Amino acid sequence: MPDSKFTIVHTDSQTQARIGKLRTAHGVINTPIFMPVGTRGTVKTCSPHDLVQIGAEIILGNTYHLYLRPGHRVVEQAGGLHKFTAWKKPMLTDSGGFQVFSLGPLRTIAEEGVEFRSEIDGSKHFISPERSIEIQNALGADIIMIFDECPPLPSDYSYLKQSMEMTLRWAERCKKAHRNRNQQLFGIVQGGMEKSLRKISVERTAEIGFPGYAIGGLSVGEEKPLMYETLAYTAPLLPKDSPHYLMGVGTPEDLVYGVSCGVDMFDCVMPTRNARNGSLFTTLGTIKMRNAKYKTDFTPLDPNCICHTCQNFTRAYLRHLHLENEILAHRLLTLHNLHFYLSLMRGIRRAIGEGTFSRLMADIGALVQLGQDQEKKETASGNTITEGRDSRNLASKLSQDTSNRKRRRERI
Amino acid sequence: MPDSKFTIVHTDSQTQARIGKLRTAHGVINTPIFMPVGTRGTVKTCSPHDLVQIGAEIILGNTYHLYLRPGHRVVEQAGGLHKFTAWKKPMLTDSGGFQVFSLGPLRTIAEEGVEFRSEIDGSKHFISPERSIEIQNALGADIIMIFDECPPLPSDYSYLKQSMEMTLRWAERCKKAHRNRNQQLFGIVQGGMEKSLRKISVERTAEIGFPGYAIGGLSVGEEKPLMYETLAYTAPLLPKDSPHYLMGVGTPEDLVYGVSCGVDMFDCVMPTRNARNGSLFTTLGTIKMRNAKYKTDFTPLDPNCICHTCQNFTRAYLRHLHLENEILAHRLLTLHNLHFYLSLMRGIRRAIGEGTFSRLMADIGALVQLGQDQEKKETASGNTITEGRDSRNLASKLSQDTSNRKRRRERI
Repeated sequence: MPDSKFTIVHTDSQTQARIGKLRTAHGVINTPIFMPVGTRGTVKTCSPHDLVQIGAEIILGNTYHLYLRPGHRVVEQAGGLHKFTAWKKPMLTDSGGFQVFSLGPLRTIAEEGVEFRSEIDGSKHFISPERSIEIQNALGADIIMIFDECPPLPSDYSYLKQSMEMTLRWAERCKKAHRNRNQQLFGIVQGGMEKSLRKISVERTAEIGFPGYAIGGLSVGEEKPLMYETLAYTAPLLPKDSPHYLMGVGTPEDLVYGVSCGVDMFDCVMPTRNARNGSLFTTLGTIKMRNAKYKTDFTPLDPNCICHTCQNFTRAYLRHLHLENEILAHRLLTLHNLHFYLSLMRGIRRAIGEGTFSRLMADIGALVQLGQDQEKKETASGNTITEGRDSRNLASKLSQDTSNRKRRRERI
Repeated sequence: MPDSKFTIVHTDSQTQARIGKLRTAHGVINTPIFMPVGTRGTVKTCSPHDLVQIGAEIILGNTYHLYLRPGHRVVEQAGGLHKFTAWKKPMLTDSGGFQVFSLGPLRTIAEEGVEFRSEIDGSKHFISPERSIEIQNALGADIIMIFDECPPLPSDYSYLKQSMEMTLRWAERCKKAHRNRNQQLFGIVQGGMEKSLRKISVERTAEIGFPGYAIGGLSVGEEKPLMYETLAYTAPLLPKDSPHYLMGVGTPEDLVYGVSCGVDMFDCVMPTRNARNGSLFTTLGTIKMRNAKYKTDFTPLDPNCICHTCQNFTRAYLRHLHLENEILAHRLLTLHNLHFYLSLMRGIRRAIGEGTFSRLMADIGALVQLGQDQEKKETASGNTITEGRDSRNLASKLSQDTSNRKRRRERI
């Protein structure tokens, strides 16, 4: 099994949650972590400077999109995705599997790989496990993923089994094809909602051996209780000492639940996409920006939030910009939603460190607030990555949590 | 005649160009100046923070658009346009005249005012001179404009004369209706390309008396030599001690020419709109971002530029973002184009102060470079508004100008 670059700093006594540090070629990330999605070489609307300002530690790039445009050879010629996009911190690329399989009638799956037509110009392409790794090697992200099949829902047991077994064979081929020692190749566990298949998938993927393991094929349309059940079953089976990555999930509640099951890494387009659609996460609940009641509401989007958007602009102004489809709206609202997610993860890490995670699990607002307190503390001390067990300010934090909850009740 | 808040610091010996300072309720602006256009309460893609970073001193808002959405009463309730948009520096609103007259068949002009249908929902509206001032008083910009008629091209002499005379009567009505002493109301000179009408318009507008005078009705489709001829005739007729504002103009060359005629203030959507269309102003000439030759061009957009975009990103990346229609492209390219315009004006101010303006007039690139040298100097000294006669670094500047011109020749 390859050397792990992952260190678990502390494990929660009442859940599977843990805080850890993952070393990559572009720095250390603190887990549990949320990774903003930068599909086409940019987290939509955000510059690298913006992302650093809100505390992003690692972002995603999409192999499928970057392969089609501008092309992985262009990115390689630029010196890799970091140089191309001017993002200097860690980066992860998916394998293109999920996107390719989402093409439906435009693609044909075979043991060798997947043939598909570009949605841009109809041109024919072929991606195999080897080809995916070759592209990801050229892109040069710190963490790369095996090429897997993400089976559609509903799929019957036999299809799920065959697909999961092909993904295992593809995992071996990816590992064999992978050359760049600066990039950590993660395995992906499949098996639909079938526990027996998930178990086999975990065991055999772990036998192949990867420095990290992802759970794929969740949040693809199944009912939430079934997703939670499968997650709660699968995550604890993963090799304990390796980072666990839940792909494409999810809501703030999903993140908290995932952490409680032992998940360390998450990515999702929800905070960025919802922002552009005018749906905002706040400590007071979700806000739909176009609601007429905000027309003359000159208070901040989230009165408890310390992000640039909430510190400088009112709901009335943001609503106006959103209704006019102004680019500034998309950026300011994206920054807020991402800041909310990153604060949530920061709060989760602190709560785990302080032993309050299981108590605070049901209170997203309190966790976000805790994350922001931590952010203020780190900003004041000029330190952006001190995390861990720290109960010095617990009393004041708890009193603030109480007053926040009170405020929340008053507003909803 | 009202007290002028305008001080001329220095007048060029060889042209009509001058540098000055205009005091407003939200601070002093240095002229000649370019004012980025913030039609709907935002300079498209830019936050106030962005604008301050690139050195914008004053921005525009459009009365017509803000009246329709979100409505001037909403803005007034917010505490005015400054509070609503979080822009703390000076601001100017146009009167809505130009937009209303551009509606063509959707509007009816009468002595009393203009009736028009909203392009948004077809609702009926009426704007008179008094109504325009009422709206602008509610918006609360530092400089506001009289409600004028901007006659279409071509118009015959008799229409131009009638229209110009109506604008004079409207100017008087505006002055009478204006109540807020914190806002400076500027007059607007019309008269098409007819010199005799321009002369009468200037004289009678000056008789009414305003703290500043604008030249309207230029750059509305006429040939450039005719525009320049009318400008060169009209601008020197304006009261010398007042600020002169050339509305809706123009290219970098137009700005330099306007300054040489004695214009102090400019606004135009060109830098912002062109940026969104992928057309960039650089010291090496105009760049069309979608050109295939930039696909693997990993050099900055403008190697001589010190803006955030040029300091951090390559042509290849910006081209990729632009082709993908990514919001980040629009913002980064807008910031560059605006920085180019603001550097040009900074360079013009410095050249006037140093007595080199007439010699450098033909060399936009050299003026931009001079503006950037000044920006670096001010950033280094922590001072953002020191302008004036300063020939200490003339020798080093001149040698740099030469080397820039040389570089430019090599690249084009």
